[in-house]
Amino acid sequence: MITVNIIGSGNVALHLISVFQQTENVALQQVFSRKPESITHLVSSDKITTNYSDLKLADITIISVTDDAISEVSDQLPFENQLVVHTSGSVGLDALNAKNRKGVFYPLQTFSKSKAIDFKAVPICLETENEWDYSILETLGKAISDKVFKISSEQRQSLHVAAVFSCNFVNHLYQLGKEICDENQVPFEILLPLIQETADKIKTLSPLEAQTGPAKRNDQKTIEKHLSFLEDENKKTIYQLLTQSIQKHNG
Amino acid sequence: MITVNIIGSGNVALHLISVFQQTENVALQQVFSRKPESITHLVSSDKITTNYSDLKLADITIISVTDDAISEVSDQLPFENQLVVHTSGSVGLDALNAKNRKGVFYPLQTFSKSKAIDFKAVPICLETENEWDYSILETLGKAISDKVFKISSEQRQSLHVAAVFSCNFVNHLYQLGKEICDENQVPFEILLPLIQETADKIKTLSPLEAQTGPAKRNDQKTIEKHLSFLEDENKKTIYQLLTQSIQKHNG
Repeated sequence: MITVNIIGSGNVALHLISVFQQTENVALQQVFSRKPESITHLVSSDKITTNYSDLKLADITIISVTDDAISEVSDQLPFENQLVVHTSGSVGLDALNAKNRKGVFYPLQTFSKSKAIDFKAVPICLETENEWDYSILETLGKAISDKVFKISSEQRQSLHVAAVFSCNFVNHLYQLGKEICDENQVPFEILLPLIQETADKIKTLSPLEAQTGPAKRNDQKTIEKHLSFLEDENKKTIYQLLTQSIQKHNG
Repeated sequence: MITVNIIGSGNVALHLISVFQQTENVALQQVFSRKPESITHLVSSDKITTNYSDLKLADITIISVTDDAISEVSDQLPFENQLVVHTSGSVGLDALNAKNRKGVFYPLQTFSKSKAIDFKAVPICLETENEWDYSILETLGKAISDKVFKISSEQRQSLHVAAVFSCNFVNHLYQLGKEICDENQVPFEILLPLIQETADKIKTLSPLEAQTGPAKRNDQKTIEKHLSFLEDENKKTIYQLLTQSIQKHNG
């Protein structure tokens, strides 16, 4: 049985509280929150504290707060030489106070309060200072997910940048596509199956193999047609830049 | 019972042949192909012809060939005043020879030879010159798909541009994300659940509502960190341009 404390009550904290309580061999010991009312629906009140000095030792203490607050929270912990981890994708190990053994437990997924998550499919990225702590963290990771990875602070930084390209920027291209549909009275939903298939394809093909379209085919006639169709300068510039980038990759 | 002729044996033609043969109330009458050996596994040989003059009248004749060949093929047809449609997203109605009644039957999906398609979920975009022909084409569309749309040539052009943004360019951003992972020895598969969730989200939220990330949050510290992390000039330029575009949309 692994005992866990959680500090925080944001989206990630709430999802972790919920999944730990449903997981065999994991005991959620205490939750620290400055807003206990936001977790009383999830956790019995004897497990909730608003006082750092009430926190008892656990196998793992998970700090799940905003990036900027991680350091300060780790300073406040009333114990030493314990395994203390944060859940951030973009903060290094060094943000944590050195009085405890440091680690990272980073679940790589978009968490929304209103949407349930199947944790088994969520990749968990782990980092610790030594092998023994890694095996403790790995036991917790594998209890809730089928996908546990050892990822250094530097690798996590690169993952975060890659996620901006493959998720944040991708969503913005959906937005630009929707604007083009809206301006021409075409329902955006017509594109949804194609968008879904584009995301599905790269499960079995590399993105380079999966690439299609006028830029890939070097179909200059269609590219010119599209550029003269686009009136908005911002969309024109993005169209040109991404077309050139595809052509460089396939040249 | 609707009778259909198909001209062509490319990816789209093969998928249409297959689905029509499995659909009640649709009779695949003849298939014209210059390479009959590519369809003998799908169609009984008495239905295959390599000779335009052998083509008999059908309720609908579907020309499913490369964009550039549509005009010439429509010139070759041995009959007049019949409903003749093409299956292209980027070619207008006017590419078809005026001796027949023109139309478009455009299934909006990426078709790969090796992957089966659930046609019920594929949007079919229809265009005809008159209402009567539209109702014939609509009957065929609804026989194979739950999503049939009336789309003009101009709207189809805008859909094609929107699809370049939301699918072709999106796939290229997957590619750039994968390169960043590869360069840092991080398995790209870690990002797949997040990529999937990004595509799923816009089924229930608008892309504008679904937008997350440093650009959306105006998190200048993280943006600077990412830009100095990126060494490749092409990726840097794309990162800056898409970040600015997101900021404009959320400003």
